[in-house]
Amino acid sequence: MKIYIHTKFESAEVAIIKEQLSGKYEVLIGEEVSPENREQHFLQADICFGNVPLAWAQKTTQLKWLQLHSAGLDPYQQLENYTFQITNLKGFFGQSVAETTVAGILAMYRGVAHLAKLQTESKWIGTPLRSSLHLLSNAKVLVLGAGAIGQKVKDLLVGFNCETTVLDSKTVVNLDEYLPSTDILVATLPETPETIGLLNKTRLQMLKPSALFVNVGRGSAVDEEALIEILQENKIYGAVLDVTAKEPIPENHVLWQMPNVLLTQHTSGGWAEENLDKIKFFMKNLERFERNEALINIANLERGY
Amino acid sequence: MKIYIHTKFESAEVAIIKEQLSGKYEVLIGEEVSPENREQHFLQADICFGNVPLAWAQKTTQLKWLQLHSAGLDPYQQLENYTFQITNLKGFFGQSVAETTVAGILAMYRGVAHLAKLQTESKWIGTPLRSSLHLLSNAKVLVLGAGAIGQKVKDLLVGFNCETTVLDSKTVVNLDEYLPSTDILVATLPETPETIGLLNKTRLQMLKPSALFVNVGRGSAVDEEALIEILQENKIYGAVLDVTAKEPIPENHVLWQMPNVLLTQHTSGGWAEENLDKIKFFMKNLERFERNEALINIANLERGY
Repeated sequence: MKIYIHTKFESAEVAIIKEQLSGKYEVLIGEEVSPENREQHFLQADICFGNVPLAWAQKTTQLKWLQLHSAGLDPYQQLENYTFQITNLKGFFGQSVAETTVAGILAMYRGVAHLAKLQTESKWIGTPLRSSLHLLSNAKVLVLGAGAIGQKVKDLLVGFNCETTVLDSKTVVNLDEYLPSTDILVATLPETPETIGLLNKTRLQMLKPSALFVNVGRGSAVDEEALIEILQENKIYGAVLDVTAKEPIPENHVLWQMPNVLLTQHTSGGWAEENLDKIKFFMKNLERFERNEALINIANLERGY
Repeated sequence: MKIYIHTKFESAEVAIIKEQLSGKYEVLIGEEVSPENREQHFLQADICFGNVPLAWAQKTTQLKWLQLHSAGLDPYQQLENYTFQITNLKGFFGQSVAETTVAGILAMYRGVAHLAKLQTESKWIGTPLRSSLHLLSNAKVLVLGAGAIGQKVKDLLVGFNCETTVLDSKTVVNLDEYLPSTDILVATLPETPETIGLLNKTRLQMLKPSALFVNVGRGSAVDEEALIEILQENKIYGAVLDVTAKEPIPENHVLWQMPNVLLTQHTSGGWAEENLDKIKFFMKNLERFERNEALINIANLERGY
């Protein structure tokens, strides 16, 4: 059996993969061949680890199992008549993304984002900053999405005595009734037909002037133009955006220099051991594959997560 | 009876003070008279709210009660033969300082401090940043000081499953045994003869390379020169400093541009309603004073907090 590794790993990580699979499998590392030869390697593989281009996935007749290295399924929802299994990393990023969510909230409330910017100018303001700071304790938090991230956000906030409401895919339709009283709105939504544009201008305008918006799901959940307008007019307190409509954000984009915006550059899912933990996950699923057991995290392409 | 208000308040806050005290007291607002006349006003007062110069406090024969607007007692430990009561704001800043502590830790671990700095340059790095990030979950946290701040830090971390040890003024002498295994060292210590220089070079060198140091107590607790050297040599992961030897930090100080340092400019004790809440505290204590009840937070000058 042939395994094709499409995910870009460090050489130390590749060495671990090879050590664990050699003898049992023929291992093809995408990064070790020239880009134009990778598709051929993939098309010979029985198992693939990594998010290959959609067109390759559409073409393979040999593949039995595709292990994605993401929680998101985009663009594989567009696959037609495929015969292999697809698994994703649902839940894998929960702790990490939830930690960046709380980091972002506190960075805004406690002035840390502003202070870090002042540091680049060696500029002391000190005491006058204090009246612009806020306490997270007792805040009303509305979390959209009840997956691993949403649940973890709620867990992490326990010590802050926040009143946290988590809306799942069924109850999220009721969000309008929560918006006017929400202090912090956290979107952790996957991209599905229902979530695209969910936070439209009308809904964003329902937020109060002191509201903080955090998006760690998908940029498509929010009308970004409307959000920028509302932030520029200070109609809400601020936004922490891990995801945006365009990534990377273009250098001349207005978001960069907005003082009430913190951009975390789609890093929320990362941590130092992320790749090693991904490899561990793949190896665990591979054992199940070998034993003909049901794989973990079989993707539901129709549902979108 | 005369009350002298030395603390600098906004005019709306002064209006609240006057409204609540007028009729009952003659209220003298320091900010409303020229600086050279304030001492005379203070010397006539029976009650003072605010941290007046030590020399004035040494001189008064009229004063019955001095309500400080700080938790720290410096420089009043040097008072001799005074006959008035002194109360401070012990515990008042616990939630706020603890929140900045966690904000600072997460800002370093989740890259938010770095990301905010990149934002000033409109610079996208994105994915390559992820491997430099860390998870707070399961970290070993050592908190020096078991006052309101130290206890609150432990409370806030509950959702992160950290292993948090809080050393009080008696057990802090045992800190050496904890340092080598500590992921995050949080100093919340007041300034006392025992705490000055507690974190000397030898102790800082006992920390592991991945250790993060947070100081939200007093700058004097740490040998700052040794700390800077250790940070410059990357012998620890980083530092979040709310307090430093010199405040404001001079513009040309090396700390400003150190990439592994986050400076929070002694703002950790602040929040938007801080002054209103201070006034509420003073009014509550004033009611006790009027009823001849024991005041809240009578300062122990000898102990230093």
